[in-house]
Amino acid sequence: MRTSIATVSLSGSLTEKLTAAARAGFDGVEIFENDLLASPLTPEEIRERCADLGLSIDLYQPMRDMEAVPEDVFARNLRRAEHKFRLMRRLGTDTVLVCSSVSPQSVDDDALAADQLRRLAELADGHGIRVAYEALAWGRHVNTYDHAWRIVEAADHPALGTCLDSFHILARGSHPKGIEDIPGDKIFFLQLADAPLLDMDVLRWSRHYRCFPGQGDLDVAGLLRHVLAAGYRGPLSLEIFNDVFRQAEAGPAAVDARRSLLALQEAVGEGDLPAPVVPTGVAFAELVTPDVAPAAALLGALGFTRTGRHRGKPVDLWEQGAARVLLNTGPAARREGTVLAAVGLESPDPAAAARRAEALLAPVLPRRRGTGDVLLDAVAAPDGTELFFCATDRPELPSWIRDFEPTGQLPADTDITGVDHLQLTQPWHQFDEAALFHRSVLGLEPEPSVDVADPYGLLRSRAVATSDGAVRIALGAGPGPGDDQDRAQHIALATSDVVAAARRFRDAGGELLPMPGNYYDDLAARFEFAPGELETYQELGILYDRDAHGTFRHCYTRTVGRVFFELAQRDAGYRGYGAQNAPVRLAAQHGPH
Amino acid sequence: MRTSIATVSLSGSLTEKLTAAARAGFDGVEIFENDLLASPLTPEEIRERCADLGLSIDLYQPMRDMEAVPEDVFARNLRRAEHKFRLMRRLGTDTVLVCSSVSPQSVDDDALAADQLRRLAELADGHGIRVAYEALAWGRHVNTYDHAWRIVEAADHPALGTCLDSFHILARGSHPKGIEDIPGDKIFFLQLADAPLLDMDVLRWSRHYRCFPGQGDLDVAGLLRHVLAAGYRGPLSLEIFNDVFRQAEAGPAAVDARRSLLALQEAVGEGDLPAPVVPTGVAFAELVTPDVAPAAALLGALGFTRTGRHRGKPVDLWEQGAARVLLNTGPAARREGTVLAAVGLESPDPAAAARRAEALLAPVLPRRRGTGDVLLDAVAAPDGTELFFCATDRPELPSWIRDFEPTGQLPADTDITGVDHLQLTQPWHQFDEAALFHRSVLGLEPEPSVDVADPYGLLRSRAVATSDGAVRIALGAGPGPGDDQDRAQHIALATSDVVAAARRFRDAGGELLPMPGNYYDDLAARFEFAPGELETYQELGILYDRDAHGTFRHCYTRTVGRVFFELAQRDAGYRGYGAQNAPVRLAAQHGPH
Repeated sequence: MRTSIATVSLSGSLTEKLTAAARAGFDGVEIFENDLLASPLTPEEIRERCADLGLSIDLYQPMRDMEAVPEDVFARNLRRAEHKFRLMRRLGTDTVLVCSSVSPQSVDDDALAADQLRRLAELADGHGIRVAYEALAWGRHVNTYDHAWRIVEAADHPALGTCLDSFHILARGSHPKGIEDIPGDKIFFLQLADAPLLDMDVLRWSRHYRCFPGQGDLDVAGLLRHVLAAGYRGPLSLEIFNDVFRQAEAGPAAVDARRSLLALQEAVGEGDLPAPVVPTGVAFAELVTPDVAPAAALLGALGFTRTGRHRGKPVDLWEQGAARVLLNTGPAARREGTVLAAVGLESPDPAAAARRAEALLAPVLPRRRGTGDVLLDAVAAPDGTELFFCATDRPELPSWIRDFEPTGQLPADTDITGVDHLQLTQPWHQFDEAALFHRSVLGLEPEPSVDVADPYGLLRSRAVATSDGAVRIALGAGPGPGDDQDRAQHIALATSDVVAAARRFRDAGGELLPMPGNYYDDLAARFEFAPGELETYQELGILYDRDAHGTFRHCYTRTVGRVFFELAQRDAGYRGYGAQNAPVRLAAQHGPH
Repeated sequence: MRTSIATVSLSGSLTEKLTAAARAGFDGVEIFENDLLASPLTPEEIRERCADLGLSIDLYQPMRDMEAVPEDVFARNLRRAEHKFRLMRRLGTDTVLVCSSVSPQSVDDDALAADQLRRLAELADGHGIRVAYEALAWGRHVNTYDHAWRIVEAADHPALGTCLDSFHILARGSHPKGIEDIPGDKIFFLQLADAPLLDMDVLRWSRHYRCFPGQGDLDVAGLLRHVLAAGYRGPLSLEIFNDVFRQAEAGPAAVDARRSLLALQEAVGEGDLPAPVVPTGVAFAELVTPDVAPAAALLGALGFTRTGRHRGKPVDLWEQGAARVLLNTGPAARREGTVLAAVGLESPDPAAAARRAEALLAPVLPRRRGTGDVLLDAVAAPDGTELFFCATDRPELPSWIRDFEPTGQLPADTDITGVDHLQLTQPWHQFDEAALFHRSVLGLEPEPSVDVADPYGLLRSRAVATSDGAVRIALGAGPGPGDDQDRAQHIALATSDVVAAARRFRDAGGELLPMPGNYYDDLAARFEFAPGELETYQELGILYDRDAHGTFRHCYTRTVGRVFFELAQRDAGYRGYGAQNAPVRLAAQHGPH
């Protein structure tokens, strides 16, 4: 199926938008009138630019408040339309969008609307142009897709059809089943947009909060099935008004956009994506650091043992239970202090996982990191984290661990069993993209986004996880653009005994993040504890949460560079991440004052 | 009247919030429970800190879902309450807020609610504490102030009263007149918040979009009149949940908050602010520049004449019609290129204007800039712009122009008549503050905020003006925090003939910002013009707009440093600022690509 994107969905000049759309692999564009008006390129130059980029111009949107108006107003509208049809010929596009009128001058008269749209279509036809009439969800008299279709049907002109827009249809709660009653060749165009479910006026919702399919709560795939069943064979076109996308770089946003359509096509049984390969665990987390001592000291105090040294590079392997941390002091580490740079995901079929990631437009990283190394399939996540698809000590597959020369030390047997979750900071502009990426590329299921109050702004956090919890990643974003650069990320280690783990860490010289006494006083007011229990928690900075399933006890190390560790005891099926406690933890991390 | 602010309204640690509130002159605070929980200070230390800062603790908010619940749940609630009452004694506060229950466990039974609240009040009374019961707008069974009052009345306990919150009352559209039926001494507390009118679910509206009184659309003053008429004599307390304030610096936000209460008190006939002194014109705009040549060349090409040189400082006066520009090359100019740093406002009574500004917490600038200079009353606007209250050649007052030694050159007689408007870029966090500042301090009336699409994000713009248009300022803000530093500001010169002015500028070597041909093609589709008219506009980059009153024709110079000029012909009562054309202008300023 052909894919298209409206220029309003991307930021920048028209040239930047077109270039980004072409690079992301779109087949065509809708040109939003304001982008053309502001461009120094003539229509002929725009046409040529699109041709050079391999883009068709699938739609132009210059018309407003066209139909069901008094005759003198309509005469002026036709005059304007004639201008725009001539412009469209110069652009080389043959479909014009006409949205249902919002003008106070328009009247509730379907026969008049049909008559005027027929006359508009006649004029268009003379220029070789087709008119696609669409019901805006806030149209004054016409605001449902079936109403718009009835008018198109009544007008009965070959150059007049309807345009369907998933947002306008689903936002009003219209049932899309009726779309199948429209002849497919009278659906001239299909615009697709998703949106989070927000209870607000639909105009504001549409203008500011639309997002790419799969990033919101609307059943865009369900709607698309009905449109395809009706026989529509035109492009799938994204038309997204979103305040964040307007600020985001056009290049990554266009890739994100196309990924959303690839996933959408898969959801309706179209396209040819390789099947998902869901990871079965976290093979390793990789820290890069220009200064190995503090990171190594932290790992040592946490109970990790340095079990291996990479045969070709300055990378150490540290192990404890099923938790593995790589400590990389190579050249990449020179730039930005200690950071969580890569994650190894245990994969049932690493090569197939990488093929799917690549098909979903994830940037593929070089497979071989050094001579003699095991081949590692890796891609970059939207936040820049390198994701490796690995096998660890599985007979049928080469194990990445073979690249490490054993030190002869064996990991201690402790209560640390593995990685509970990883927390990765996302660029503010890419929070929604990140969830879609992890869902479509890795098969992780997103949970709802939650707001977390930091003393200096509201953060957002959204967990993505496998259904069995073997891989859990908390995606976080700060209150505004730009502040992801200095936000810490963290590795939460799963323990069967957080008190013992915290004590051992402290006794080994590790420093736990202290929590305020007022927090424990509140815990005492909210829950009942065994004698001495709260005192132990307070002594060690252990936080406590409970959900319908079980309990969560967790504490934090101090931050080294941009990384800290959490010790997490998840009991009896607790499902959360201690978000309730995050404001207290964040305040403690800002320091005592 | 005493003023108070809830700690949730300000950003930072509890200590930072308390310090900011005290410095801004608040008498007390409401302590939001999460701020206490996250603080490393003990309750006794918080009490002491507040005492040192001269702040009372007027309210504590730890209770949720207290009433109208099954007895076993209520028993747990009382246990929690007992904990919190002991904490409040340590804090030294005697009023606790209880919001109406949102719990699914609560039942619709006013008698049960009254009974349980009475028992809670009894418990509180034993600790010397009063309970203030408030209807949340989204309370499960109790969500109007009169309903909450009926329950309080039925419970009939001296330690139980009601808390009124302007947001909860006005957001639901309740009429506040009925407040006068509540005995003043049973209104234990009053929380004040404004909000823009947004059609969205009230919980989201309340949690993210509240603002200080006078910054939104609710009639907070009208409500306050009823509360005072009821006999309430407690503090006016601000409780603002706002995503932007959470990120803004606490110091300026607290000043903004207190200014809103000063203006609110004036609106209900309380307080003792000096009367407003509305400016009658723009006396001058001052550019500071480290590099005088480009700015002087621009002024010269625009038709300005250098008519004076400051007697003591490197500042030149340039004049044309009633438009005056100061060009300052002094030490302040070394830092950040050419900027619009100060505005002189022609004032009927400069000293009185300054007294009002100072009373409204505007930072007062040193009055005398050099020995022998005329005294100039000046304050800093929230964006850092220096505002001078001036008299220009008025016999009864010293004229600031006397500080300038005439060059002997006289200004040319041109079609430039004065300053049409100034556009000042606001820090993103202070957009609402800026409008309140200009309204309360300067008596300018704000118009609605409009969104303007820049290629790289949605900008906001809000005009403030005198009713006669003698002073017009367009306040602008970028799409995100931090980008105000590199956004240009501009001076729009009023002309009676924009075509002549633009030609003269170009003939004098000035460079006009070219506008795209597509824009003129669209003008031709939308309006009818005399033969050759559009060609002239296109040749000169003149933009065109029309409203119900008249027409607006305007064009732009290239930007020097962070400043550019506009030539603006406002005909037949046109009231806008050409916002319709702003996206085209902004794209042109980003450069041809």
